[in-house]
Amino acid sequence: MTNPRKRRKSPPEAVSAFSDPRHRVVIENVRPQVDDGAYPAKAIINDPFEVSADIFADGHDVLMAILQYRHEDEPDGWQETAFEHTVNDRWVSSVVPEKLGIHVYRVVAWVDSFKTWRHQLERRVEAGQDVATDLLIGAAIVETAIERADGAERNLLSALTGTLGDAKLPATERVPTAMDDVLATLMEKYPDRSAETVYKPELRVDVDPVYARYSAWYEMFPRSASPEPGKHGTFADCEARLPYIKEMGFDVLYLPPIHPIGRTNRKGKNNSVIAEPDDVGSPWAIGAAEGGHRDIHPELGTLEEFKSLVSNAREQGIEVALDMAFQCSPDHPYVKEHPDWFRRRPDGTVQYAENPPKKYEDIVPFDFDSPDREALVEELIDVVRHWVKQGVRIFRVDNPHTKPFALWERLIPTLKKEQPGLVFLAEAFTRPRVMYRLAKLGFSQSYTYYAWRNTDWELSSYVSEIMKPPVSDFFRPNFWPNTPDILTEYLQTGGRSGFMTRLALAATLNSNYGIYGPAFELLESQPREEGSEEYLDSEKYQLRHWDLKRADSLRGFITRINRIRQEHPALQHNRGIAFHKVDNPEIICFSKRSPSDNEVILVAANLDPHHGQSGWVTLDHREIGLEEASSFQVHDLLTDARYLWHGGRNYVELSPASSPVHIFVIRRYVRTEHDFDYYM
Amino acid sequence: MTNPRKRRKSPPEAVSAFSDPRHRVVIENVRPQVDDGAYPAKAIINDPFEVSADIFADGHDVLMAILQYRHEDEPDGWQETAFEHTVNDRWVSSVVPEKLGIHVYRVVAWVDSFKTWRHQLERRVEAGQDVATDLLIGAAIVETAIERADGAERNLLSALTGTLGDAKLPATERVPTAMDDVLATLMEKYPDRSAETVYKPELRVDVDPVYARYSAWYEMFPRSASPEPGKHGTFADCEARLPYIKEMGFDVLYLPPIHPIGRTNRKGKNNSVIAEPDDVGSPWAIGAAEGGHRDIHPELGTLEEFKSLVSNAREQGIEVALDMAFQCSPDHPYVKEHPDWFRRRPDGTVQYAENPPKKYEDIVPFDFDSPDREALVEELIDVVRHWVKQGVRIFRVDNPHTKPFALWERLIPTLKKEQPGLVFLAEAFTRPRVMYRLAKLGFSQSYTYYAWRNTDWELSSYVSEIMKPPVSDFFRPNFWPNTPDILTEYLQTGGRSGFMTRLALAATLNSNYGIYGPAFELLESQPREEGSEEYLDSEKYQLRHWDLKRADSLRGFITRINRIRQEHPALQHNRGIAFHKVDNPEIICFSKRSPSDNEVILVAANLDPHHGQSGWVTLDHREIGLEEASSFQVHDLLTDARYLWHGGRNYVELSPASSPVHIFVIRRYVRTEHDFDYYM
Repeated sequence: MTNPRKRRKSPPEAVSAFSDPRHRVVIENVRPQVDDGAYPAKAIINDPFEVSADIFADGHDVLMAILQYRHEDEPDGWQETAFEHTVNDRWVSSVVPEKLGIHVYRVVAWVDSFKTWRHQLERRVEAGQDVATDLLIGAAIVETAIERADGAERNLLSALTGTLGDAKLPATERVPTAMDDVLATLMEKYPDRSAETVYKPELRVDVDPVYARYSAWYEMFPRSASPEPGKHGTFADCEARLPYIKEMGFDVLYLPPIHPIGRTNRKGKNNSVIAEPDDVGSPWAIGAAEGGHRDIHPELGTLEEFKSLVSNAREQGIEVALDMAFQCSPDHPYVKEHPDWFRRRPDGTVQYAENPPKKYEDIVPFDFDSPDREALVEELIDVVRHWVKQGVRIFRVDNPHTKPFALWERLIPTLKKEQPGLVFLAEAFTRPRVMYRLAKLGFSQSYTYYAWRNTDWELSSYVSEIMKPPVSDFFRPNFWPNTPDILTEYLQTGGRSGFMTRLALAATLNSNYGIYGPAFELLESQPREEGSEEYLDSEKYQLRHWDLKRADSLRGFITRINRIRQEHPALQHNRGIAFHKVDNPEIICFSKRSPSDNEVILVAANLDPHHGQSGWVTLDHREIGLEEASSFQVHDLLTDARYLWHGGRNYVELSPASSPVHIFVIRRYVRTEHDFDYYM
Repeated sequence: MTNPRKRRKSPPEAVSAFSDPRHRVVIENVRPQVDDGAYPAKAIINDPFEVSADIFADGHDVLMAILQYRHEDEPDGWQETAFEHTVNDRWVSSVVPEKLGIHVYRVVAWVDSFKTWRHQLERRVEAGQDVATDLLIGAAIVETAIERADGAERNLLSALTGTLGDAKLPATERVPTAMDDVLATLMEKYPDRSAETVYKPELRVDVDPVYARYSAWYEMFPRSASPEPGKHGTFADCEARLPYIKEMGFDVLYLPPIHPIGRTNRKGKNNSVIAEPDDVGSPWAIGAAEGGHRDIHPELGTLEEFKSLVSNAREQGIEVALDMAFQCSPDHPYVKEHPDWFRRRPDGTVQYAENPPKKYEDIVPFDFDSPDREALVEELIDVVRHWVKQGVRIFRVDNPHTKPFALWERLIPTLKKEQPGLVFLAEAFTRPRVMYRLAKLGFSQSYTYYAWRNTDWELSSYVSEIMKPPVSDFFRPNFWPNTPDILTEYLQTGGRSGFMTRLALAATLNSNYGIYGPAFELLESQPREEGSEEYLDSEKYQLRHWDLKRADSLRGFITRINRIRQEHPALQHNRGIAFHKVDNPEIICFSKRSPSDNEVILVAANLDPHHGQSGWVTLDHREIGLEEASSFQVHDLLTDARYLWHGGRNYVELSPASSPVHIFVIRRYVRTEHDFDYYM
């Protein structure tokens, strides 16, 4: 971490604020703090990490407070930065982590008797009081610092003590010494911290790579990547697809499971319970005679070909993300080799996955109540470790909420410690508390309810909940307009304009988003049946062939959106998001302000894919950093159009036929007559 | 505590939710919880104490959760009540404490495998599936309960296991046994809690007497209580004043310090730094030749007379509250007997109280940094103990924020443990965090900023902050329109109507309030000087004589307000307070709903003491428990007037000349044509 105020080998033992009444400072309400310190908060390398706390004491003495922090692997690496008081006893400090992994931080504060004395002396002098005795008190305070100081500074403090305490000198001649900056600087360097309060517990923050904060995911089925219709796709086909993905601007390529697929009870096309002989089955039914979670489905290629895809993608700025689905087909080698890892029914059969009365007979779940669970958990950790060794850094974890929390609490920190910079995305579409818990346990990103949040109120209230503290301290949402499991009604009915709006909102509301392609850019919108969110002829159960060059592809629009994200840091963070009132609920308007360059992006989107909509936007000035009365230019980065706006209300009109979304950058400067030379 | 679901000798050792993956239930966000359990929450004897928590597990199994609680003095006295699920994994339970003092509570939850199985079986049966194997699984679950059961129930469980597991019987004949209530009841009585999760830390709640929640304080200077002008009042005079106080409806009589008053640097009338020989001095300058904090100012009477006042008051339903001001006059015996308890300046003089450049030379503060501080703290505790022995149960503590927090953290729990039911009121007019901290450390009630909150926005935002969780978990506000130190500008300028409004608001917004009388009921409003909040001729520095029978006394109005408080439980709590919109900011409108009988009191007050004001009130129906469209009667308890109101907007008009306040009780029932026999 950076900004070291001072280095210490190790801070003193933490003490309770009340073991000794001299420890007068109270430290409370330290933020971020996840579940009272049980779990680490989340931060990003090279992004400022801000810590705040209520810090106060009885009476009116002057306090000092510092933030101590170190990497967990460096027990002696404590660094310190000062806290600043803001308002109402709230103090703030900030550090910029320069290393990945878990850091420990503590808040320490003490009464500064020198500053308190100096402040009071100033008031007495102003009031014209006799301060001779007060100077003696000050001399005694400065004297205690002598033994804490070194060398020349020690001598200097000694001399200053002598001057302050020299009763033969008139007080008026000693006051300038008391007020001198040299003395103040020395006393700040050698403070009396014997009665400092150290906040307990020690808190932790997990420093992740930039990918965890800012990423654009593209999901595709490798087996559908062949340029030849009807032919099983391969890793080599995926490699050939990389320029297409790169050009659109995605930086994570996520592949559904690449392992051998079970044959017993294999699902047929459109989730039919009976498979035809040539049906390829669901990639999530993992394991067959050819192997299990460490192996590759032979038709996709070899391990070497996979590694070539990973390294080739990385050279182009794309990380390959793998799917970790901890479940087995009945043919998985584990079922025979580790029968104890599966539950048996009283009739001796293995327990299939089920959600009564539904049964999923192509899947057998692990039994985490197994007496052999320790070996099972170690094996699952080792499966991920295996893929880390092959170069994979990002994992999308399938249904983590149906496995014990204790598994993730162990697996993720273990692997992140071995390989700093891993990213885990939790695919848990479940109740909010469970999703939050998984994030606390270590998941770097989480799927969300975004797919089903369509109205202004739904979107703004949901975003406000998940993108602000305390949730944002530990939870990083990832917005997906579609997935192979989720073809929303909005996409089924909204047409091209609906796809554009949902993509633009995902990509601008959230710095992390993804699409399942090529179904998305090719506007795939037919459900398997009325009322279903499953795709017709879903790639989950069959090969598909996609014509990427279709004239109606959204490829160009997506490319433009991703380029805007790349060029504007405001869209690479989820801090500083604010919603602005529009008098038409079919239009949503929000802004994001970049914490680094303060640039503001303003988005207005038509949520109605069928009709043109117009309305008046009332801007929240403070959120966009503008004066109420100022005029400014807004520049639409999608159409390149420019409009003159001003504080207060502004008109927007959005047509589904042309562009259902404005993505404005605010150009603050608008010329006025004051800018002309001849203006008086 | 009551409502025992079941008694256990002692719950098993608390375990972390993640030491073993079988402990699958997560318990989070338990409320109330003050500073992560560092301090007890507050409750009142015989009032329901509600505990809520997020409780969930991975997957979809059925959970059970219980609240365990016991008095801190009864390590084996654990009782249990069940939690109920509300919404979004939030669970709620409640107990009614029947004993004063600290109680410990814990939240325990586990996966109920029997209920999970039974729920799934129901679905399978409904779907017409073969459940023969499922019945065997159920038999195995029931079998494990046998050894947990006793006697006849053990045999019954054994028989039920046999039936469920009897493969010779058709499944259809065994299903009714599985679904039978007898089995469900037995399984709930003997659950498998081997993998239960116990929330850590153990939490505490301090159960206080009703006085802590509901009290009407009357402050008066005993030395001004003589019926004869110019004569020093006595405890006997106070005793004679009791019927007057009782009739007005107050139940706490608070006396400023009753100890001997110092002579050195004694303050004269109107805080003059030079006292005349006959000046009586400030009662807060404690200690003289006659004694210190355990002694009584001789002119007030004897200890026996004081005890007579205390017991006589109690017989009339009035508690005498004493002022604890931990500071000394320079003449206090401590100054000679314990020189180490005071700070000396380098010139050898004792350090007076000061707030530079101001000096308070009639007061010397204790030095809590003293090496002899242990003896000092013990002595201060013993001072309070002394007055507890004389029968005092309520203490108003002077300026607690200028003493170390550690003092209160030790003093209050020590004394409350010795004498359950003590009440401590913190007189800390300081920053919010410090006031909250004092409440956490043990103060039962706290002075507030009420005196300076005059507008609709000021009052509603302040009340909403301090009367809702998390603040209300530990902080009990007490509202004072005036004190001997505080004659607000509103009272200086607002006239009779201003006094009425400020009293009515204090008494109805807050179940705890007080006035400094007779200055209040006699409308004393002259400040010492322009811009000052000090009273002219303040009783702090001189005797006053009050004509209690003055025709303009507010005595009758106060009597009426206090009677309304006594007759309506809604005003004896601060729960269920809600503000309603008024289109005129000079009128404030709020309601309080009684948690016991659901009665709603609706208050509308004119904040403008100079002009009549009228406006339209928009009622929040949910808060007052009425249908939007219903009509109802409001009955003004002050004037006895009745009005017909309805859901939606209603008109109010309030004149300072007649009554500036409505205190309505809502009479829900309004007759309609449906109530007539001949209505079809």
